[in-house]
Amino acid sequence: MLKFDRQDLIPAIIQNDTTKEVLMVAFMNDEALRLTREMGYTHFFSRSRNAIWRKGEQSGNVQEVRDIFVNCEENSLLIRVIQNGDAACHEGYRSCYYRRLLQDDSYETVAERIFDPEIVYER
Amino acid sequence: MLKFDRQDLIPAIIQNDTTKEVLMVAFMNDEALRLTREMGYTHFFSRSRNAIWRKGEQSGNVQEVRDIFVNCEENSLLIRVIQNGDAACHEGYRSCYYRRLLQDDSYETVAERIFDPEIVYER
Repeated sequence: MLKFDRQDLIPAIIQNDTTKEVLMVAFMNDEALRLTREMGYTHFFSRSRNAIWRKGEQSGNVQEVRDIFVNCEENSLLIRVIQNGDAACHEGYRSCYYRRLLQDDSYETVAERIFDPEIVYER
Repeated sequence: MLKFDRQDLIPAIIQNDTTKEVLMVAFMNDEALRLTREMGYTHFFSRSRNAIWRKGEQSGNVQEVRDIFVNCEENSLLIRVIQNGDAACHEGYRSCYYRRLLQDDSYETVAERIFDPEIVYER
Protein backbone atom coordinates (compact mmCIF):
# COMPACT_ATOMS: atom_id res chain seq x y z
CA MET A 1 0.00 0.00 0.00
CA LEU A 2 1.47 3.34 -1.08
CA LYS A 3 2.57 5.72 1.64
CA PHE A 4 1.78 9.35 1.03
CA ASP A 5 3.65 11.90 3.15
CA ARG A 6 2.33 14.32 5.77
CA GLN A 7 1.05 16.58 2.98
CA ASP A 8 -0.66 13.57 1.34
CA LEU A 9 1.85 13.59 -1.51
CA ILE A 10 4.20 11.06 -3.07
CA PRO A 11 7.18 12.01 -5.26
CA ALA A 12 7.22 10.59 -8.79
CA ILE A 13 10.40 10.39 -10.82
CA ILE A 14 9.68 10.63 -14.53
CA GLN A 15 12.05 8.76 -16.83
CA ASN A 16 12.07 8.64 -20.63
CA ASP A 17 11.29 5.00 -21.40
CA THR A 18 13.31 5.05 -24.62
CA THR A 19 16.46 6.97 -23.71
CA LYS A 20 16.37 6.24 -19.92
CA GLU A 21 17.02 9.95 -19.32
CA VAL A 22 15.58 11.24 -16.04
CA LEU A 23 13.21 14.02 -17.08
CA MET A 24 11.79 15.47 -13.86
CA VAL A 25 10.45 14.80 -10.43
CA ALA A 26 7.08 16.06 -9.23
CA PHE A 27 4.53 15.27 -6.56
CA MET A 28 1.25 13.43 -6.90
CA ASN A 29 -1.65 13.26 -4.51
CA ASP A 30 -4.08 10.37 -4.57
CA GLU A 31 -6.23 12.06 -7.22
CA ALA A 32 -3.29 12.94 -9.52
CA LEU A 33 -2.14 9.34 -9.38
CA ARG A 34 -5.65 8.08 -10.11
CA LEU A 35 -5.92 10.39 -13.16
CA THR A 36 -2.45 9.34 -14.32
CA ARG A 37 -3.42 5.68 -14.22
CA GLU A 38 -6.90 6.13 -15.71
CA MET A 39 -5.97 8.51 -18.51
CA GLY A 40 -2.53 7.06 -19.20
CA TYR A 41 -0.91 10.51 -19.08
CA THR A 42 0.98 12.05 -16.14
CA HIS A 43 -0.87 14.36 -13.78
CA PHE A 44 0.73 16.06 -10.79
CA PHE A 45 -0.21 18.10 -7.77
CA SER A 46 1.21 21.62 -7.58
CA ARG A 47 2.00 22.66 -4.02
CA SER A 48 2.31 26.33 -4.99
CA ARG A 49 -1.00 26.44 -6.85
CA ASN A 50 -2.66 23.82 -4.65
CA ALA A 51 -4.14 22.20 -7.73
CA ILE A 52 -3.81 19.20 -10.02
CA TRP A 53 -2.21 19.83 -13.38
CA ARG A 54 -1.88 17.66 -16.42
CA LYS A 55 1.71 17.68 -17.63
CA GLY A 56 1.84 19.35 -21.06
CA GLU A 57 -1.58 20.98 -20.81
CA GLN A 58 -0.13 24.26 -22.11
CA SER A 59 2.90 23.14 -24.10
CA GLY A 60 1.38 20.01 -25.59
CA ASN A 61 4.37 18.06 -24.31
CA VAL A 62 2.32 15.37 -22.62
CA GLN A 63 3.81 12.22 -21.14
CA GLU A 64 2.28 8.88 -22.06
CA VAL A 65 2.69 6.38 -19.23
CA ARG A 66 4.44 3.14 -20.07
CA ASP A 67 5.08 1.66 -16.63
CA ILE A 68 4.81 2.60 -12.98
CA PHE A 69 7.22 1.19 -10.40
CA VAL A 70 7.13 1.42 -6.60
CA ASN A 71 10.21 1.61 -4.36
CA CYS A 72 11.05 -0.70 -1.46
CA GLU A 73 9.56 1.67 1.11
CA GLU A 74 6.45 2.35 -0.96
CA ASN A 75 6.92 6.08 -0.59
CA SER A 76 7.99 7.06 -4.11
CA LEU A 77 7.20 6.16 -7.71
CA LEU A 78 9.24 5.74 -10.87
CA ILE A 79 7.18 6.34 -14.00
CA ARG A 80 8.52 5.49 -17.44
CA VAL A 81 6.97 7.58 -20.17
CA ILE A 82 6.94 8.37 -23.85
CA GLN A 83 7.69 12.12 -23.90
CA ASN A 84 5.67 13.98 -26.51
CA GLY A 85 7.48 16.89 -28.17
CA ASP A 86 10.80 15.75 -26.71
CA ALA A 87 11.07 18.48 -24.05
CA ALA A 88 9.81 17.74 -20.54
CA CYS A 89 11.08 20.95 -18.95
CA HIS A 90 9.08 24.19 -18.98
CA GLU A 91 12.38 25.97 -19.65
CA GLY A 92 12.50 24.24 -23.05
CA TYR A 93 14.99 21.48 -22.30
CA ARG A 94 14.60 17.73 -22.77
CA SER A 95 15.13 17.17 -19.05
CA CYS A 96 14.72 19.47 -16.07
CA TYR A 97 18.25 18.43 -15.05
CA TYR A 98 19.99 20.45 -17.75
CA ARG A 99 22.56 22.05 -15.43
CA ARG A 100 25.52 20.48 -13.71
CA LEU A 101 26.32 21.64 -10.16
CA LEU A 102 29.97 22.68 -10.04
CA GLN A 103 32.36 22.68 -7.08
CA ASP A 104 32.08 26.47 -6.65
CA ASP A 105 28.25 26.15 -6.48
CA SER A 106 27.77 27.65 -9.94
CA TYR A 107 25.85 25.83 -12.68
CA GLU A 108 26.98 24.69 -16.11
CA THR A 109 24.27 24.21 -18.74
CA VAL A 110 24.91 20.87 -20.41
CA ALA A 111 21.93 20.55 -22.76
CA GLU A 112 20.47 22.25 -25.82
CA ARG A 113 17.24 24.20 -25.64
CA ILE A 114 14.55 22.51 -27.73
CA PHE A 115 11.84 25.20 -27.54
CA ASP A 116 11.57 28.83 -26.54
CA PRO A 117 9.35 29.11 -23.44
CA GLU A 118 8.50 32.74 -24.30
CA ILE A 119 6.70 31.52 -27.40
CA VAL A 120 5.26 28.25 -26.11
CA TYR A 121 3.75 29.75 -22.98
CA GLU A 122 2.95 33.19 -24.52
CA ARG A 123 4.40 35.05 -21.59
CA MET B 1 20.98 28.76 -5.26
CA LEU B 2 19.47 25.46 -4.13
CA LYS B 3 16.08 25.53 -2.47
CA PHE B 4 15.64 23.23 0.46
CA ASP B 5 12.07 22.51 1.58
CA ARG B 6 10.31 23.41 4.82
CA GLN B 7 12.14 20.57 6.57
CA ASP B 8 15.46 21.83 5.15
CA LEU B 9 15.68 18.87 2.79
CA ILE B 10 16.11 18.40 -0.94
CA PRO B 11 15.27 15.17 -2.80
CA ALA B 12 18.10 13.50 -4.71
CA ILE B 13 17.42 10.98 -7.46
CA ILE B 14 20.24 8.47 -7.75
CA GLN B 15 20.91 7.08 -11.22
CA ASN B 16 23.45 4.45 -12.27
CA ASP B 17 25.83 6.38 -14.53
CA THR B 18 26.59 3.32 -16.64
CA THR B 19 23.23 1.64 -17.13
CA LYS B 20 21.07 4.79 -16.62
CA GLU B 21 18.85 2.76 -14.27
CA VAL B 22 17.16 4.84 -11.58
CA LEU B 23 18.33 3.32 -8.31
CA MET B 24 16.62 5.26 -5.55
CA VAL B 25 15.47 8.61 -4.27
CA ALA B 26 16.44 9.96 -0.86
CA PHE B 27 16.63 13.28 0.93
CA MET B 28 19.68 15.37 1.71
CA ASN B 29 20.06 18.24 4.10
CA ASP B 30 22.78 20.83 3.64
CA GLU B 31 25.31 18.73 5.57
CA ALA B 32 24.57 15.49 3.70
CA LEU B 33 25.05 17.31 0.40
CA ARG B 34 28.32 18.85 1.64
CA LEU B 35 29.63 15.42 2.69
CA THR B 36 28.51 13.92 -0.63
CA ARG B 37 30.45 16.54 -2.56
CA GLU B 38 33.54 16.51 -0.33
CA MET B 39 33.89 12.74 0.06
CA GLY B 40 32.64 11.86 -3.42
CA TYR B 41 30.20 9.29 -2.01
CA THR B 42 26.48 9.73 -1.42
CA HIS B 43 25.25 10.70 2.03
CA PHE B 44 21.60 11.21 2.94
CA PHE B 45 19.46 12.47 5.77
CA SER B 46 17.11 9.99 7.37
CA ARG B 47 13.87 11.59 8.47
CA SER B 48 12.92 8.60 10.63
CA ARG B 49 16.28 8.44 12.42
CA ASN B 50 16.89 12.21 12.23
CA ALA B 51 20.50 11.54 11.27
CA ILE B 52 22.88 11.59 8.34
CA TRP B 53 23.83 8.22 6.89
CA ARG B 54 26.42 7.25 4.36
CA LYS B 55 24.87 5.03 1.72
CA GLY B 56 26.43 1.56 1.95
CA GLU B 57 27.88 2.03 5.44
CA GLN B 58 26.54 -1.38 6.48
CA SER B 59 26.28 -3.25 3.19
CA GLY B 60 29.44 -1.88 1.59
CA ASN B 61 27.36 -0.91 -1.44
CA VAL B 62 28.61 2.66 -1.57
CA GLN B 63 27.84 5.04 -4.43
CA GLU B 64 30.70 6.94 -6.03
CA VAL B 65 29.50 10.29 -7.34
CA ARG B 66 30.09 10.99 -11.02
CA ASP B 67 27.98 14.07 -11.61
CA ILE B 68 25.40 16.20 -9.85
CA PHE B 69 22.65 17.97 -11.79
CA VAL B 70 20.13 20.56 -10.60
CA ASN B 71 16.59 20.89 -11.92
CA CYS B 72 14.98 24.01 -13.38
CA GLU B 73 13.37 24.99 -10.09
CA GLU B 74 16.52 24.27 -8.09
CA ASN B 75 14.57 22.12 -5.66
CA SER B 76 15.83 18.65 -6.54
CA LEU B 77 19.04 16.92 -7.57
CA LEU B 78 19.93 14.17 -10.01
CA ILE B 79 23.12 12.36 -9.00
CA ARG B 80 24.82 9.93 -11.36
CA VAL B 81 26.87 7.30 -9.56
CA ILE B 82 29.01 4.24 -9.89
CA GLN B 83 27.16 1.69 -7.75
CA ASN B 84 29.51 -0.52 -5.74
CA GLY B 85 28.34 -4.13 -5.29
CA ASP B 86 25.62 -3.62 -7.93
CA ALA B 87 22.68 -3.49 -5.49
CA ALA B 88 21.47 -0.09 -4.31
CA CYS B 89 18.40 -1.34 -2.46
CA HIS B 90 18.51 -2.57 1.13
CA GLU B 91 16.14 -5.32 0.06
CA GLY B 92 18.92 -6.74 -2.10
CA TYR B 93 17.84 -5.51 -5.50
CA ARG B 94 19.81 -3.44 -8.03
CA SER B 95 17.23 -0.68 -7.85
CA CYS B 96 14.66 0.21 -5.19
CA TYR B 97 12.09 0.24 -8.01
CA TYR B 98 11.97 -3.54 -8.40
CA ARG B 99 8.17 -3.78 -8.36
CA ARG B 100 5.66 -2.75 -10.99
CA LEU B 101 2.38 -1.23 -9.81
CA LEU B 102 -0.46 -3.11 -11.45
CA GLN B 103 -3.98 -1.93 -12.28
CA ASP B 104 -5.48 -3.78 -9.30
CA ASP B 105 -2.98 -2.04 -6.94
CA SER B 106 -0.94 -5.21 -6.44
CA TYR B 107 2.79 -5.34 -7.16
CA GLU B 108 4.72 -7.51 -9.57
CA THR B 109 8.40 -8.07 -8.80
CA VAL B 110 10.35 -7.50 -12.01
CA ALA B 111 13.97 -7.88 -10.87
CA GLU B 112 16.29 -10.50 -9.46
CA ARG B 113 17.55 -10.32 -5.90
CA ILE B 114 21.33 -9.81 -5.83
CA PHE B 115 21.96 -10.26 -2.11
CA ASP B 116 20.10 -11.62 0.90
CA PRO B 117 19.41 -8.75 3.31
CA GLU B 118 19.15 -11.19 6.24
CA ILE B 119 22.83 -12.01 5.81
CA VAL B 120 24.16 -8.61 4.77
CA TYR B 121 22.51 -6.71 7.60
CA GLU B 122 22.75 -9.55 10.16
CA ARG B 123 19.16 -9.10 11.27
